[in-house]
Amino acid sequence: MLITLTTDFGNSDHFVGTMKGVILGIAPRAGIVDITHEITPFALGEAAFVIAQAWHWFPKGTIHVVVVDPGVGSARRPILLEAKGHRFIGPDNGVFSMIYDAAPHKAREITNTKLNLHHVSRTFHGRDVFAPAAAHLAKGIPPARFGKLIHDLVRGSELQPVEKRRHCWTGTILKADRFGNLITNFHIGAVSGVRTHPFEMRAGAQCIRRLAMTYAETDIDELSVIVGSSGYLEVSANQASAAQKLGCGVGAPVELEIFL
Amino acid sequence: MLITLTTDFGNSDHFVGTMKGVILGIAPRAGIVDITHEITPFALGEAAFVIAQAWHWFPKGTIHVVVVDPGVGSARRPILLEAKGHRFIGPDNGVFSMIYDAAPHKAREITNTKLNLHHVSRTFHGRDVFAPAAAHLAKGIPPARFGKLIHDLVRGSELQPVEKRRHCWTGTILKADRFGNLITNFHIGAVSGVRTHPFEMRAGAQCIRRLAMTYAETDIDELSVIVGSSGYLEVSANQASAAQKLGCGVGAPVELEIFL
Amino acid sequence: MLITLTTDFGNSDHFVGTMKGVILGIAPRAGIVDITHEITPFALGEAAFVIAQAWHWFPKGTIHVVVVDPGVGSARRPILLEAKGHRFIGPDNGVFSMIYDAAPHKAREITNTKLNLHHVSRTFHGRDVFAPAAAHLAKGIPPARFGKLIHDLVRGSELQPVEKRRHCWTGTILKADRFGNLITNFHIGAVSGVRTHPFEMRAGAQCIRRLAMTYAETDIDELSVIVGSSGYLEVSANQASAAQKLGCGVGAPVELEIFL
Repeated sequence: MLITLTTDFGNSDHFVGTMKGVILGIAPRAGIVDITHEITPFALGEAAFVIAQAWHWFPKGTIHVVVVDPGVGSARRPILLEAKGHRFIGPDNGVFSMIYDAAPHKAREITNTKLNLHHVSRTFHGRDVFAPAAAHLAKGIPPARFGKLIHDLVRGSELQPVEKRRHCWTGTILKADRFGNLITNFHIGAVSGVRTHPFEMRAGAQCIRRLAMTYAETDIDELSVIVGSSGYLEVSANQASAAQKLGCGVGAPVELEIFL
Repeated sequence: MLITLTTDFGNSDHFVGTMKGVILGIAPRAGIVDITHEITPFALGEAAFVIAQAWHWFPKGTIHVVVVDPGVGSARRPILLEAKGHRFIGPDNGVFSMIYDAAPHKAREITNTKLNLHHVSRTFHGRDVFAPAAAHLAKGIPPARFGKLIHDLVRGSELQPVEKRRHCWTGTILKADRFGNLITNFHIGAVSGVRTHPFEMRAGAQCIRRLAMTYAETDIDELSVIVGSSGYLEVSANQASAAQKLGCGVGAPVELEIFL
Repeated sequence: MLITLTTDFGNSDHFVGTMKGVILGIAPRAGIVDITHEITPFALGEAAFVIAQAWHWFPKGTIHVVVVDPGVGSARRPILLEAKGHRFIGPDNGVFSMIYDAAPHKAREITNTKLNLHHVSRTFHGRDVFAPAAAHLAKGIPPARFGKLIHDLVRGSELQPVEKRRHCWTGTILKADRFGNLITNFHIGAVSGVRTHPFEMRAGAQCIRRLAMTYAETDIDELSVIVGSSGYLEVSANQASAAQKLGCGVGAPVELEIFL
């Protein structure tokens, strides 16, 4: 059984290794795959984007654990989500919002404390609550044993662009990737007019009017908008960092206007 | 059989992958878990802290390899340590000091060169000595075959606070975590007075007097002392970096005074 | 069956996790080992060096996937390479050049689109082409099914030093490792005179004349040339960063003169 991990714990501490020790102590045959542990600390929108891009490439039955959890120790609920044969475990703080939008799903609050570690700390629920929950699920404990169905899931704000005026929206940067590509929250499904009409994407001090098919077709250093492998519009610069050129990062505003 | 790896090799070189290739060539069924490879280069105290936090969350029988080894190529001894059903492999330079203090243990110098790679380089004992030793151990070679018991283990200095005057100690920062929390070498077991009496923790240009239960109960940006999931006192700032606020990192001095 | 991954995707995005999901969906029993995902973006020489150092430490049969691919979406060919019982999958852009030089090999262009994912994007062949190819190979699809043999492999420039005048060569920095050691493209096999004769290695503003056996034998902070575990000459500084001292990084020129 596969378990994926997505956190903002970084790779320089013992946190992630400790979670894996807990999982493998309970479910020795689980296979563990890191999605990333480098989510910007507390960036729920980035976590929501990353897991939404990754989960469906895994085989059915995979358990996806997401721990980006600024409210650890407060009253936010731990949840177990099921969607399209996949299972998700994490805090109810909006990190799974893009999955709620993409697929039919049901969610449970994890209230069965027998599925936690014996002692639950106030600061590290990744190890004490979410890791053991995932391991017990991997070993075959049925979802109903974790807790009751809930229907009032918390959704992330800022994940959807806001229409400012007709054909003009304000969105945001969800993620700056390793190459400096800036992934916006504009999905091509919602703004397909960029394929057929002139448009302006405004971010930082720049205004971009070119839609490119691949990085390779633009000039070196040229800024363009590309439909990323995620389906979201990305601002890219061929063999250069769009993030540096625009001076923009996660959470920065982006305006898109289509001239229909 | 599980093998964990803790090194200061970083994740950008071929070093860690190469160690895994050596392990899997000898013990194809071993499961390998990274604790971290981002120990500050040559920081023995940080390595000692990290492995001490992680090891006991793994199932018994796990083999923990730690390679932070400024003396590679010199006369320091490679050792195999056994404690509470776990096994540890690394250089005898103090990286296991916190385990010596926490659990009954026995240690052997690894002198059986048949358990090394055929050719041992002078610069990369992680690959040539420690990885094959772990793999042979995982395959069932008994500890006695590695070498004789030794009793003069090297201990790290700086891992214990020094009493400066009554109820006042000088300690140090063992680790700055991903969120900028500063983990000190003050263990709550030794300074439990902070729970019941006024205290001052002085580090950088700051003096902190508040003991908090969770990050969430303090104001955003507020500095406080928290008992971390490790049992060590941490200096934290709610949703901010204490390391930045104090201008302190690994190895910096910290003073703790309790007013009993 | 083991599959190793070497990319410039970094560890902060969903890219690597997604590739692993695709692999494990096709070949659930594959063991996946990361070599590194921190290759400098688009640095073909660095990728060529890293995989050349790592592959032979893995057991025979291992499949090594390398994705450093500035030409993704353009006409460069995907290839499957076989050498000494190992298999290699990646773009035909020179990343395997050092393996061509080190071992007899045969290569095929991967033209069988049935071994790709159903939909191949223009920007992410790591997921859509290379990951599924590796997984199908791991499941036992024979190499001949991937495509026809080719003999006009692309080779990297800049991987071999250039003889400037007798006993004097211009080389380059292939890699700056985690400790600031600078690995040059001078292989001891080609410049063994440094062992027996005076020499100068000139890089940045420095001129180094000392060949050391280990870091430990030099003074703290002292620059020296060392024969690294790779067989390539490295510029090192004991417990300090040679990269910082020289102000040099990947791609910088290095001159070596031997006074025979």
